Amino acid sequence: MCGIVGYIGTQPATEILMAGLERLEYRGYDSAGLATVLEGKIHCIRAKGKLKNLRSKLAEAINPSQIGIGHTRWATHGKPEEYNAHPHLDMTRRVAVVQNGIVENYQELRSELKSKGHEFLSDTDTEVIPHLIAEYLSTTTELDGFFKAVQQTVNRLSGAFAIAVVCADYPDELIVARQQAPLVLGFGQGEFFCASDVTAIVPHTRAVLTLENGEIAKLTPLGVEVYNFKGDRLRKAPRTLDWNPIIVEKQGFRHFMLKEIYEQPGVVRNCLEAYLNSNWHLEDHPNFSPINLGLPPQFSENLEQIQILACGTSWHASLVGKYLLEQLAGIPTMVQYASEFRYAPAPITANTLTIGVTQSGETADTLAALETEKQRRSGLEAKFQARILGITNRPESSLGQIVDRLIDTQAGIEIGVAATKTFVSQLMAFYFLSLDFAYARQTITQEKIAAIIKGLSQLPAQIELILESQERYIEEIAHEFSETKDFIFLGRGINFPIALEGALKLKEVSYIHAEGYPAGEMKHGPIALLDAKVPVVAIAMPGDVYEKVISNAQEAKARDARIIGVSSMNKNEASSIFDNLLSVPAIEEILSPMLTVIPLQLLAYHIAARRGLDVDQPRNLAKSVTVE
Amino acid sequence: MCGIVGYIGTQPATEILMAGLERLEYRGYDSAGLATVLEGKIHCIRAKGKLKNLRSKLAEAINPSQIGIGHTRWATHGKPEEYNAHPHLDMTRRVAVVQNGIVENYQELRSELKSKGHEFLSDTDTEVIPHLIAEYLSTTTELDGFFKAVQQTVNRLSGAFAIAVVCADYPDELIVARQQAPLVLGFGQGEFFCASDVTAIVPHTRAVLTLENGEIAKLTPLGVEVYNFKGDRLRKAPRTLDWNPIIVEKQGFRHFMLKEIYEQPGVVRNCLEAYLNSNWHLEDHPNFSPINLGLPPQFSENLEQIQILACGTSWHASLVGKYLLEQLAGIPTMVQYASEFRYAPAPITANTLTIGVTQSGETADTLAALETEKQRRSGLEAKFQARILGITNRPESSLGQIVDRLIDTQAGIEIGVAATKTFVSQLMAFYFLSLDFAYARQTITQEKIAAIIKGLSQLPAQIELILESQERYIEEIAHEFSETKDFIFLGRGINFPIALEGALKLKEVSYIHAEGYPAGEMKHGPIALLDAKVPVVAIAMPGDVYEKVISNAQEAKARDARIIGVSSMNKNEASSIFDNLLSVPAIEEILSPMLTVIPLQLLAYHIAARRGLDVDQPRNLAKSVTVE
Repeated sequence: MCGIVGYIGTQPATEILMAGLERLEYRGYDSAGLATVLEGKIHCIRAKGKLKNLRSKLAEAINPSQIGIGHTRWATHGKPEEYNAHPHLDMTRRVAVVQNGIVENYQELRSELKSKGHEFLSDTDTEVIPHLIAEYLSTTTELDGFFKAVQQTVNRLSGAFAIAVVCADYPDELIVARQQAPLVLGFGQGEFFCASDVTAIVPHTRAVLTLENGEIAKLTPLGVEVYNFKGDRLRKAPRTLDWNPIIVEKQGFRHFMLKEIYEQPGVVRNCLEAYLNSNWHLEDHPNFSPINLGLPPQFSENLEQIQILACGTSWHASLVGKYLLEQLAGIPTMVQYASEFRYAPAPITANTLTIGVTQSGETADTLAALETEKQRRSGLEAKFQARILGITNRPESSLGQIVDRLIDTQAGIEIGVAATKTFVSQLMAFYFLSLDFAYARQTITQEKIAAIIKGLSQLPAQIELILESQERYIEEIAHEFSETKDFIFLGRGINFPIALEGALKLKEVSYIHAEGYPAGEMKHGPIALLDAKVPVVAIAMPGDVYEKVISNAQEAKARDARIIGVSSMNKNEASSIFDNLLSVPAIEEILSPMLTVIPLQLLAYHIAARRGLDVDQPRNLAKSVTVE
Repeated sequence: MCGIVGYIGTQPATEILMAGLERLEYRGYDSAGLATVLEGKIHCIRAKGKLKNLRSKLAEAINPSQIGIGHTRWATHGKPEEYNAHPHLDMTRRVAVVQNGIVENYQELRSELKSKGHEFLSDTDTEVIPHLIAEYLSTTTELDGFFKAVQQTVNRLSGAFAIAVVCADYPDELIVARQQAPLVLGFGQGEFFCASDVTAIVPHTRAVLTLENGEIAKLTPLGVEVYNFKGDRLRKAPRTLDWNPIIVEKQGFRHFMLKEIYEQPGVVRNCLEAYLNSNWHLEDHPNFSPINLGLPPQFSENLEQIQILACGTSWHASLVGKYLLEQLAGIPTMVQYASEFRYAPAPITANTLTIGVTQSGETADTLAALETEKQRRSGLEAKFQARILGITNRPESSLGQIVDRLIDTQAGIEIGVAATKTFVSQLMAFYFLSLDFAYARQTITQEKIAAIIKGLSQLPAQIELILESQERYIEEIAHEFSETKDFIFLGRGINFPIALEGALKLKEVSYIHAEGYPAGEMKHGPIALLDAKVPVVAIAMPGDVYEKVISNAQEAKARDARIIGVSSMNKNEASSIFDNLLSVPAIEEILSPMLTVIPLQLLAYHIAARRGLDVDQPRNLAKSVTVE
């Protein structure tokens, strides 16, 4: 979950590395550091806290070195202090390493090295790496001694890691290796880059090579050599990114999160344009699907069950997906935490479509769960094997290499750590998928499909209406929660996952302990928490569970809780039930999550902003979770 | 979720009603009241708070009436104030009603009655009932006018309700009716009882009749007449309870919850005795199952999938059940919140066994979800219909009338509102069920089955060891959390549901906002909450996910959180990872939830007791949730 960058070439490395780290800061930001090689020495600078701290230290220590590595950290082992920041060096300060991931056997290696006299300066798992490399280097004088020492070292490590290494004695070599953590190489003109994510590379070149698991590469000013961990040279070729990086600016918004909330009408429009067949009209008695996802026919043939693997916000989107796939397309659907599935997968069934959902396409648990699934599917009949679908906002990511087909959620890059626009775009993907299956399986009428499509096409205007009419009110009431310690979010049916998501947003950006519940479960325990100090947010949209949610809200009110309703009921009606009304337009229940989540995003944002917190980079979090 | 009682007979009613309410207090306790009929008048006494408040008021107003009704309340509509307490009366104070349940159309009825000049004194849904009865009574002078007025009234009510009604003008009639809420009649010698639960009746008689949905009964000193809501007389006969009521005493423990925690070794022994085939030995190459649940063969024939419906603690037990059924018996298993399933059931599949889990057998959502399932299964081929299994601690409950077969969890009556011994007995039921299926399907070897059975039989001694060795330590550290506002519980795999259960216990009895997470999900949001004020409980038992949980604990520690480990590792090892160790014996991972939950129960208990809270009757909660 850290970010690493590396540079070797013809320009001073420091500024290129810093610019790269700035683009990776979303991956972690509790400390950062750089190492360059100049005049036979390693120059290492590190600072606790955000990148700007490192930048102020650098001002006094800038140097013209043309090789270097950099790191922005999200602590896994050891506190976010400067002594734990990367790069880490060996005792003789000849080798510097940056790492993303976790070395699982580091305690064993540390004991071994200690017994040989090594002393350690940090609490990290990473520090064993430069010590090991130095240990192997000390026994060699070969020309490719540095490469071999790194190669021997990676063979000793277990766990997930991506590393970049420089050595004072080999000033024209940058060695990198990958095992279960992302690493991309970039090819400039006489200069070469490595980074955890292409975002750090695209300002310089669009020719990239994604390193695969078990690969190690040597970067020199002349080019790149790729090997496997055994040391066999591999043939590879860079590809050109067709991914057009969106220029990232806040465009007048105070935070990226707010900007991205406001981008949602546009994101929904993009999705509609990309995946609705504009030629499809109910009147023409069509014989082709209204949805154009380009899925292969075997995805829906004899399909009996769907399982979805995801984490965090994507897991919430998947729960909405389950509701849609079951209720529209009639397909029993299981949603699993990827982190749980990978160690205890449900028994395999042949006629199952597996869907992995990850915004970044790099979520370690989701990728590993999908790999598990892919491997065990290879034991099935051929026709059942290639049935893994990915849903992601980053089609160029590692996810693409595992799944058989991708749905690109078309939301554009998201900078705010708390997902907003990518969540609604994941929901859109599930609407399209459910309608496509419902059409193929004829589980609902063409008229019903046409009605839902019409409803979908009205969403952008309705979301705009919520943003226009509600933001000021939400900003006003946000200050009333400046001392609130706990929140409960209630929803039922298709809006139960929205209660979870509303709670997660608040938790992520405001550090308030918010918890989402299916409203009917409140009486089975959590209601004990309620009193006048705990506000309850109830999502009450007309439909199958409307009265029930209102009953549950009244049970909470009977315990003196302040009730905030997200509802399309009018103000008069609402005033007898809710203390505050976050108003959304009337809409079919099946589409309502697309609207109800919007005021909850605004509520989380404004409470956090009011508290003066760093909304775009909340403490302890990272945008894409590339470690377990 | 309220409790109601009624008496008509030869003795003074007041003391009998009070004794009955005391036995029902577990169902709710924010207010209580009694109504008796004497000398052509209704005498009604009500008090806010627990029964002892009512008892002190009664001291001044005792009367010799031989008919009456009583109520202990858990607020659904309106605050727990005296004016909202039952019984509710009409304007002329001729009719008094107690009710359990929710009248869903009360607002409509209230408007109608208001337009006829009725004035209301409470915020409750119940108050419309006496008013409606009075309205119908005013138009009649018939001998059976009271009965008919109640009958007309219940036909106007929608929702779930059990009611008992007395009338000043009919001093020898007690009318009761049931629709989706429990009601039992008791037959004494010249005296008749009604109550929400047999516990209130067994001190007087063991001859009982469970009223069914849509039934109304007239109790007089001469006997009982049962009718349907249309008014047709029904033939019925009482049955004799073979249920032997356990004498409920705290036996020297400070609270029932602690007593019940200590009863767990005995409960596990009971379960082993009841369901293990003592004749089964691996050595004899047996050809019969080691488990003796008496399930019909069609439960396992061609079984392709299991779905489990439950709420609250039973839902947690079901998640452990899912793990066992999938990993031991190889059957894909879905666990659904009953409250969600009833409004959006997953598409039906033929070869599915449905399991309903409810401690009380009266949980309204679970019963309704099972009814939904039963009705739609009636559309399947005959061989797929009768495949609904219940798991309950109260085999005489309403659950028995819905399901095709029951597993009795044999834990004895549980008085503490926070479930402890019934939770471990539900886990035992899932171990037995999984082993029985695993034996039939040969998904694991006989040796493996024998090893698990051996492990199960060692559990009582191991639980005793935890109680003996850990309670004092847990009591000691509990005071360090007297100001703590938030707790996070982490587990993975089979211990993830135990993290949820540990958090729920703490939430229920201490009102601390505790939340359970699958450890791998922490990084996807909740980690933002962590700092030195938020302790983290990590369940780390050797097995597939041991290292992973320890890694996740260290991520939390890097954010300054205090880490409490539940683990079998030794103190030396533990001291480098955990700030406190709650030690449990080493055990196979698959059996570990039976041990890891014990220290978490003790932790919740002692934190709450230390805070001086009413552990056995936490605020806002009720033991069995008989409303939605």
